[in-house]
Amino acid sequence: MTYRAPLEEISLTLTHMVGADALAGTELFAEATVETRDAILTEAAKLAEEVLAPLNRVGDLDPCRIENGVVRLPKGFVEGFAAIRDGGWMGLTAEPRWGGMGLPHAFFTAFNEMTSSACLALALGPLLTIGKIEALQEHAPDWVRDLYIPKLASGEWTGVMDLTEPGAGSDVGALRLRAEPAGDGTYRLHGQKIFITWGDHDAAENVCHLVLGRIAGAPDGVRGVSMFLCPKFIPEADGTLGPRNAMRAIGLEHKMGLHGSPTCVMEFDGAAAWLIGGENRGLMAMFSMMNAARLGVGVQGVGVAEAALQAAEAYAQARRQGRTPVGDGHGPIADHADVRRMLTTMRARTMAARAICFACATALDFARAAPEAERAGWAARAGLLTPIAKAFGTDVGCEVASLGIQVHGGMGYVEETGVAQFYRDVRVTPIYEGANGVQAMDLVGRKLAQHGAAPHAMLDEIAAFAAQARSGAGAELAARLDAARAQVLAATDWMIAAKGNDRHAGATPFLRAWALLLGGYFLFKGAEAAPKLMPLASFFIRQELPQAAAHLAAATEGAGALYPEIETEDAADSAAA
Amino acid sequence: MTYRAPLEEISLTLTHMVGADALAGTELFAEATVETRDAILTEAAKLAEEVLAPLNRVGDLDPCRIENGVVRLPKGFVEGFAAIRDGGWMGLTAEPRWGGMGLPHAFFTAFNEMTSSACLALALGPLLTIGKIEALQEHAPDWVRDLYIPKLASGEWTGVMDLTEPGAGSDVGALRLRAEPAGDGTYRLHGQKIFITWGDHDAAENVCHLVLGRIAGAPDGVRGVSMFLCPKFIPEADGTLGPRNAMRAIGLEHKMGLHGSPTCVMEFDGAAAWLIGGENRGLMAMFSMMNAARLGVGVQGVGVAEAALQAAEAYAQARRQGRTPVGDGHGPIADHADVRRMLTTMRARTMAARAICFACATALDFARAAPEAERAGWAARAGLLTPIAKAFGTDVGCEVASLGIQVHGGMGYVEETGVAQFYRDVRVTPIYEGANGVQAMDLVGRKLAQHGAAPHAMLDEIAAFAAQARSGAGAELAARLDAARAQVLAATDWMIAAKGNDRHAGATPFLRAWALLLGGYFLFKGAEAAPKLMPLASFFIRQELPQAAAHLAAATEGAGALYPEIETEDAADSAAA
Repeated sequence: MTYRAPLEEISLTLTHMVGADALAGTELFAEATVETRDAILTEAAKLAEEVLAPLNRVGDLDPCRIENGVVRLPKGFVEGFAAIRDGGWMGLTAEPRWGGMGLPHAFFTAFNEMTSSACLALALGPLLTIGKIEALQEHAPDWVRDLYIPKLASGEWTGVMDLTEPGAGSDVGALRLRAEPAGDGTYRLHGQKIFITWGDHDAAENVCHLVLGRIAGAPDGVRGVSMFLCPKFIPEADGTLGPRNAMRAIGLEHKMGLHGSPTCVMEFDGAAAWLIGGENRGLMAMFSMMNAARLGVGVQGVGVAEAALQAAEAYAQARRQGRTPVGDGHGPIADHADVRRMLTTMRARTMAARAICFACATALDFARAAPEAERAGWAARAGLLTPIAKAFGTDVGCEVASLGIQVHGGMGYVEETGVAQFYRDVRVTPIYEGANGVQAMDLVGRKLAQHGAAPHAMLDEIAAFAAQARSGAGAELAARLDAARAQVLAATDWMIAAKGNDRHAGATPFLRAWALLLGGYFLFKGAEAAPKLMPLASFFIRQELPQAAAHLAAATEGAGALYPEIETEDAADSAAA
Repeated sequence: MTYRAPLEEISLTLTHMVGADALAGTELFAEATVETRDAILTEAAKLAEEVLAPLNRVGDLDPCRIENGVVRLPKGFVEGFAAIRDGGWMGLTAEPRWGGMGLPHAFFTAFNEMTSSACLALALGPLLTIGKIEALQEHAPDWVRDLYIPKLASGEWTGVMDLTEPGAGSDVGALRLRAEPAGDGTYRLHGQKIFITWGDHDAAENVCHLVLGRIAGAPDGVRGVSMFLCPKFIPEADGTLGPRNAMRAIGLEHKMGLHGSPTCVMEFDGAAAWLIGGENRGLMAMFSMMNAARLGVGVQGVGVAEAALQAAEAYAQARRQGRTPVGDGHGPIADHADVRRMLTTMRARTMAARAICFACATALDFARAAPEAERAGWAARAGLLTPIAKAFGTDVGCEVASLGIQVHGGMGYVEETGVAQFYRDVRVTPIYEGANGVQAMDLVGRKLAQHGAAPHAMLDEIAAFAAQARSGAGAELAARLDAARAQVLAATDWMIAAKGNDRHAGATPFLRAWALLLGGYFLFKGAEAAPKLMPLASFFIRQELPQAAAHLAAATEGAGALYPEIETEDAADSAAA
């Protein structure tokens, strides 16, 4: 099973589907030309194919462990991490004044996809560090930025986010980790965090935690949450390492997959920490990096989907079984119609999810680089696309990994084949960084704000594209796309008018319908520029997009059906209004 | 995590959805009264809850292994198997003249569901033995039946089916295991079989294989396949064990799940074997037990789905997180609308799949027990329902297990919680006993024979039900059900008229649409008799059944879209016609 980075598909997506080439026309990303992109992604492809992919199964068989109070990564992971670090990848998007390359998030997204395809467990570490850099750039005081970001961007140190507690997962406001003022402007943290990905490891000399906690006397709920920087080793002003901080990994979770990624229980026992973003403003700081982190996880789903697809295609081309319906009848199983359907479905969904993720990344970039007057619009578009990218990307990751097993038949269920690992590894992605149900709440909540300005703008764009495409060769596809757009618009307006719990009851199918529409739009747009994509776009619009209507039917049923023990719908909405 | 056998749901399904009570009105099953059923299933429930369920995780953590040439089951499995044996369960459906209880397959199906919920890895062994008994009853010569069936029905020996070879999985006709006549009417088998479930173990004193092979000089393909009985120990005429036969397990697969079920590579090195069912008639013999075996695997999917549902419901009732939209706002996460949606979806699909499986089992019973003139109709109905029960039951098993993980959030990904095991274990069920794609081929192929007599009869039954329900309180649901029926009918007639590869290209979504229609029908029928089921039936018809239209759209697109490299559809059909 050999992973080959899909550089051409990625390039087609960036150029023809999501308009990323225009980033080089902005001042901020003037250096981010297509030539630069190609050169960089070619290097990233080499790293993923040659260094990371061979580590994937190693990490599965040789899980992380705690030895003498220190977390040890699987064999080869330290070297794999070093290759990422030495290639300068962890500074890809960081600002140049702190040693970064200042390149667009769209480029990083392609890097993230490839490394996630190759070795998701290892790719997670750098992803978290890059998210950390963004948070510090935006919210940390100057001395913190000057001291920490260069170390993170160079990969000498890594960064991690500590959010979940046993009683506070999806509900951040319930967290209880205690931060006591030390009297000198710093704080001491007391408490436990769980599910801390890459919370400790032996691949870098320092691990810097961004910890959500509660200062004594703070209000209840999310309005009393603050964010703290808490390094494993407290650095001196010159960046050399000082004393060991009073926090450590006291356990590792035994997970279904991602064995190579340490999932730590972290204990803080009076650890020194610095406030980031102001007292009780932790949630604001967290939200600002949430878009990128959630997008990053959606891309992980795409990455695993691509890897699973490649493995299934290779197997289906090599395996012969039964008389095939084309050619001389002695073709590989890829020629059987039902296997074709599986492979085509896998490819179509993977391409659609990729396009949505890359569109989101590009919108994030334009939200920083576009002329001032256009930034809010781009930010709103990124905000709209983020929960869809996260939830659809990761759901597609799971679905494609499952179809990949099915293509392999019995061999897919045997661990040595490797495709079972994709299925196990990717299953966490719909859960972490905001469970997909939480993403759907976000979509029907904050992302429909301002009377649905962001979704309406997106739907207008699709309508304009369909109107133009209607006059061309793809007239029938355009009509189908436009019909689906009208259905999504109607459901969106239904959502905007609906009460809270009626929205929530339909959130998940609503998100899926949006994703299908966006996928059809981006694939069709790509196919208009690159006609060889047309069969796939046609398949998606004719055979996948019809599911949108079914999802929208469920999405607009309201909460009543889910609470049969409550007589009236009013009751179900009483507390949610 | 405590499994409780859903005796009430099972009883409702048998009585009100699939009409199994009428079995007691036949001569063959006169003793199979509802009272007998209740008594037997109550005992089965105890076995599943108290003896088998505690073994499930043990089997996951302590995989089977080969020691000194013998396969050892996980700790406690030998005792668990003994409890099944000593309860007389392996003779449940066997004919009384060979020591069986002669009870309907519908009863066994309920037993199979419960034991599959409790411990799928262990339940597999008895399932295979019961399938073996059926094959011998139908095809073996008298001396074989008299010698072997009592030993199998008593559970002293077990039975297993040896079909797959490295080059012959879905394509049975490609198998090459060699059977040489020994000159005395017996044969000597030479070759290897893979993926042999429970091919060897230490829970019974003998393991009797039914092996598909090819007699020297036999025609190529399926018409040259014969079936042989090949016991691990060759019994004397009085049933005492004789010499060890020349076959053994030479390896065990390292699988993603079902670690407690030994999946063997079997080597036959001149093993003595007896022909069953006539020279080159192996496929006929195999087909006759295939309906029951495929149904049995569909039921496994239902069983795991039920177990995953129960675990998710228990967790969602215990876990508190965030402000809930009903009552005082401090309810468990089961009160959140999106969690409700997941739980309701899990329950609705599980109930639908159960009903389809039990309807199939009941049809198999009536095909034996009904008045002579009606038997062919029942057999055709069983034939139609079998691929749907197998594919939908197992797909639902995977989907519900995945939703169960999602309900648990991060805890679902941690192995100690137990729900990850459901997800890993059940993933093999869409693969073995005929991959679900093969089931779909069967549906659009043999099961549409005679101009679609069987599907048309089923659709007529649904139309009659909908016409009657239309006048009642559920008029709107009836109209929706009938509209879906009309769509399925149109697609069925499209399939009957279509060329081979166009059928195959749409087979999988066609099967899913059929399953959704059947699920809506059975749930609605059950709800008319037991009104408390109405909310679930309504949810299924209003929120799940709309997907049927999308699947039918894909099902009737033809093969062309899947072969974009071929210019005309004729080419794709050239070899398949």
